[in-house]
Amino acid sequence: MKYNCIIIGSGPAGFYSALSCAKNGYKTAIVEKEYFGGTGFRTGCLPVKRNLDVLRKVEEAISISSGDISLDPDFKDNLLKNTETYMSGAEDMIIKRLKEAGIDIFTGNGRFIDAKTFLINNKKLETDYFIIATGTSPAAPHGITLDGKRVISHIEALKFQKPPEKMTIIGGNVEGIEMSSLFSSLGTEITVIEQLDYLLDGTDRDLIEPVVDNLISRGVTFLTGVKAKSVEVNGQQASVTLGSGEKVDTEKVLVTGFRQINIPDGIETTGIEYSKDGIQVNKNLQTNIPSIFAAGDINGIHGMAHIAIQQGMLITEGLKGKKVIRDYSSLPRAMFTLPEIAGAGKQEWELQKENTPYQITKHPLKDTWRGFSRQIDSGFIKLIFTDKNLLTGIWMTGADASETLSASGLLVGQNLSDSIIMDNLFIHPTQGEGVSEALFKTTIRIPR
Amino acid sequence: MKYNCIIIGSGPAGFYSALSCAKNGYKTAIVEKEYFGGTGFRTGCLPVKRNLDVLRKVEEAISISSGDISLDPDFKDNLLKNTETYMSGAEDMIIKRLKEAGIDIFTGNGRFIDAKTFLINNKKLETDYFIIATGTSPAAPHGITLDGKRVISHIEALKFQKPPEKMTIIGGNVEGIEMSSLFSSLGTEITVIEQLDYLLDGTDRDLIEPVVDNLISRGVTFLTGVKAKSVEVNGQQASVTLGSGEKVDTEKVLVTGFRQINIPDGIETTGIEYSKDGIQVNKNLQTNIPSIFAAGDINGIHGMAHIAIQQGMLITEGLKGKKVIRDYSSLPRAMFTLPEIAGAGKQEWELQKENTPYQITKHPLKDTWRGFSRQIDSGFIKLIFTDKNLLTGIWMTGADASETLSASGLLVGQNLSDSIIMDNLFIHPTQGEGVSEALFKTTIRIPR
Repeated sequence: MKYNCIIIGSGPAGFYSALSCAKNGYKTAIVEKEYFGGTGFRTGCLPVKRNLDVLRKVEEAISISSGDISLDPDFKDNLLKNTETYMSGAEDMIIKRLKEAGIDIFTGNGRFIDAKTFLINNKKLETDYFIIATGTSPAAPHGITLDGKRVISHIEALKFQKPPEKMTIIGGNVEGIEMSSLFSSLGTEITVIEQLDYLLDGTDRDLIEPVVDNLISRGVTFLTGVKAKSVEVNGQQASVTLGSGEKVDTEKVLVTGFRQINIPDGIETTGIEYSKDGIQVNKNLQTNIPSIFAAGDINGIHGMAHIAIQQGMLITEGLKGKKVIRDYSSLPRAMFTLPEIAGAGKQEWELQKENTPYQITKHPLKDTWRGFSRQIDSGFIKLIFTDKNLLTGIWMTGADASETLSASGLLVGQNLSDSIIMDNLFIHPTQGEGVSEALFKTTIRIPR
Repeated sequence: MKYNCIIIGSGPAGFYSALSCAKNGYKTAIVEKEYFGGTGFRTGCLPVKRNLDVLRKVEEAISISSGDISLDPDFKDNLLKNTETYMSGAEDMIIKRLKEAGIDIFTGNGRFIDAKTFLINNKKLETDYFIIATGTSPAAPHGITLDGKRVISHIEALKFQKPPEKMTIIGGNVEGIEMSSLFSSLGTEITVIEQLDYLLDGTDRDLIEPVVDNLISRGVTFLTGVKAKSVEVNGQQASVTLGSGEKVDTEKVLVTGFRQINIPDGIETTGIEYSKDGIQVNKNLQTNIPSIFAAGDINGIHGMAHIAIQQGMLITEGLKGKKVIRDYSSLPRAMFTLPEIAGAGKQEWELQKENTPYQITKHPLKDTWRGFSRQIDSGFIKLIFTDKNLLTGIWMTGADASETLSASGLLVGQNLSDSIIMDNLFIHPTQGEGVSEALFKTTIRIPR
């Protein structure tokens, strides 16, 4: 069979690449080895968000209803038991959208035969272009081996049929803290081991504080500035040995934050250049082999789902010889912790590092009218201004922060001054009004 | 006592005017006759949103938890019973913030003695400037009289100790449909009477559809294209006579959408010019009397809380002889219906009326990844582009629409083209990603 485009992998980058190729008139096929949706939509990020959304909504309803709600005692077990069924619904949705777009779907293990041919289920597929979107898989640090039973990754954690009593999470990174938020809410006794002296590297301390307070109130123990050196498994128990020599006994060890790239079989027949960090691409996402492109985490540019989605949506620009990589300087992003952290643009630690003068202003969400109406008790919105009083960053910790700031990248990219923001209206009552409240109480005068 | 600024009224305009004056160094007093927070924060809009938020959160939790939640049978009664207590908390918050800002507070009925003097509780307050922010009160159309018992306004509806069995709402306007959303969710059998042939005048039909579908599923009856001519009260029952001569029997009649301005006592001593539509002001919000300004609904510019808030926040500009009225052409706004409707900029009906060529693109929220994860089943996001492919309007019907689009006014004001939007990233997974999804599936080419 002959195609214009074959996409290898159906995660965020692959799914949108396939839709983009089909929409632009290319005869398109997609190949998936295991789970449609990949780590982003099927085995990692989205199911975590789904479960956190359920917990968050239920907790918010219980708190806002003044005790008029009761929960089935099996609620937590049911949540985990339903995860797999629910997420296979995501696969159905993905397959439906691919089929509706007229894309041929191949499932199974395949391999490259050359730079224009792929072999799958004994069929030879020829194509003008390949788009490799195979993403990454969970890995573990030196000295620790994932066994899928006691020492696990997100894949197995999301298949739990009931919450473990005790779990040690290696890594105080975004994945580790999201998982701590999820499982501590389900009643698991969590210990987080983080090598650095602080959690969530790359995030201002004030943004993290409400999350850490919440996790501590849910009984999470943080061991920071200490390395997990090795893990021994003994029947139903595991024991993590720290750099200090101490041991942490636990039921499960969840390793987070380590990834390895998924290189498709037979890649050596294509002549593609790659390293352990990814397949090298130019700004059009084209590899050194003209017929082969690479989109999403596999190209090592940025391991984030929305960047993978955008690269997929724009991939046909690349096929036409145009730039796909965009300016990521105001990069909006969120951490789906409890509460969420979200925002776009620079943070204070970056400006301090660059020695750039700046000024912040903050407003607590509980003092917005919607925060009051929703009985929100923690979190805030923070604006960061630099030279000429231009908005350089907008950050928030709080309920639905990701939604309130979903378009914050676009805002930060517009060079908005404090007075332009104040000239505008924010919908009332919303948490988003915290922006004008924060500006209202301060005069922005950047120190020189 | 001598002040620089005295604010009459403590609703959205008055509250923020007082804070603004105090922050800018004016010796400030505020006068409130009855409820701190006025209609916006205390007796009207905010309590409706508060109760809708509780119902929404509880309904969402019940739906997302797959039946693992049960509700106390008294939940609905408790919600109404708690409203008054909860909203008096808003008054406490307002008084606390006023006091923290060093503002003197006077409670009671007062009156102007002249353009620089106000008498309250036998005290004469002198001032350089007055800011009148007395807002509006509920009114009724010709032929109908509010009696506060059977024929009521939002003020009494929000004091119900339990939901009425039957209620007829006069007005299919924003207030009427918000109230229908609230009370139909509480089990009241609602009939809405709207004089026009359609509901929510000034809103595109497609945006309204999910709301009307939802209200119909909750048993709401809509009588459109028919006028409520008169109401007769007979003991525990009321009967609305329609223009057609038919009668609608009901327990309560809630009149919405009619307002009358609250003119302070003694205004005739000041020489201020006003009509039944409001106190006339220039662009600085100054009346014909140099020492007297008017902010919020009382000046008749726009009866919306966020405009009142902004006028309050910027009032000291007016005192300094600068413009307070801003450009409201991209006016963001929301209707707190179930689900919510929100957005900014022009709608299709306006562009059709102006004969402006435009193109729309839409994306259903259930097909966003967050919509999937939250099991959202209705609503969509819609982008409207005009000449040069510039974003002219962004509108949404769906869960948390107000929050997702809280800053949409700012976005629509930035002259963003379709390609600039696509160059940007949206936080994943959010409903806000519907923006890029909507653009991804269409090529914007404005018809000429």
